[in-house]
Amino acid sequence: MKPPYYAVIFVSVRTEGDNGYGVTADRMEELVKDIPGYLGMDHARDSNSITICYWDSLEAIDTWKQNMEHKEAQRMGREKWYASYKLKICKVERDYSFEK
Amino acid sequence: MKPPYYAVIFVSVRTEGDNGYGVTADRMEELVKDIPGYLGMDHARDSNSITICYWDSLEAIDTWKQNMEHKEAQRMGREKWYASYKLKICKVERDYSFEK
Repeated sequence: MKPPYYAVIFVSVRTEGDNGYGVTADRMEELVKDIPGYLGMDHARDSNSITICYWDSLEAIDTWKQNMEHKEAQRMGREKWYASYKLKICKVERDYSFEK
Repeated sequence: MKPPYYAVIFVSVRTEGDNGYGVTADRMEELVKDIPGYLGMDHARDSNSITICYWDSLEAIDTWKQNMEHKEAQRMGREKWYASYKLKICKVERDYSFEK
C-alpha cells in the first residue's frame, strides 16, 4: 500500500472481565478481512489497547462501520466491554519502513 | 485538540535485550513534551510496540525529527534497538471519544 490511504486508530481501555469480548473480537478480525478496501491491521495491548486498521478509502471505512454484525459489536462495546475509547479517522500522507 | 491535527504512528519490533533503550526512551518522552506543537501520545506494547504522537502541524513533526538528541536516538534505534519498524505520518480528519 502506498500513501495516500486511510488509518482508523482505536485506543481503548477495557472494563473488568471478558464478558464475551474475546469471541467477538476474533469474529470481527475474521469479518473485516472480507470488506473490500481493507488493507491490514496493527495491534498492541497492555493496560490499554491500540488497534489500527488500514483502508484504501473513506467509503471502505464506512462500509465496515455500517456492517450489521460490527454494529452489534459496537453496541456491546459501549454497553459492556469498554471503560473508554478514542477513535480517529486519519489520512496517511507519508510512510517509511525499516528492516534490519 | 480538534481535527485537523497530525498523528505519527510508530509500530516497532525490538531486538533482544535492552541495550540502553529504556533510558533513552524515558529521555525522549521527557524531551518531546517541550517541542512546540506536541499534543500528546498513546502507547501500548506486547510482542510489538505502537506509539502514536499527536502534533498540531507538519512543521512541529519536522522540528522533533531534526532535534539533535532525537536524531542520535533514531540512529541508535536503527543500529541496536529495532528489528523492524514502520512510521506513518497522518492527518487526523475526524475523531470521537467514549467514556462510560
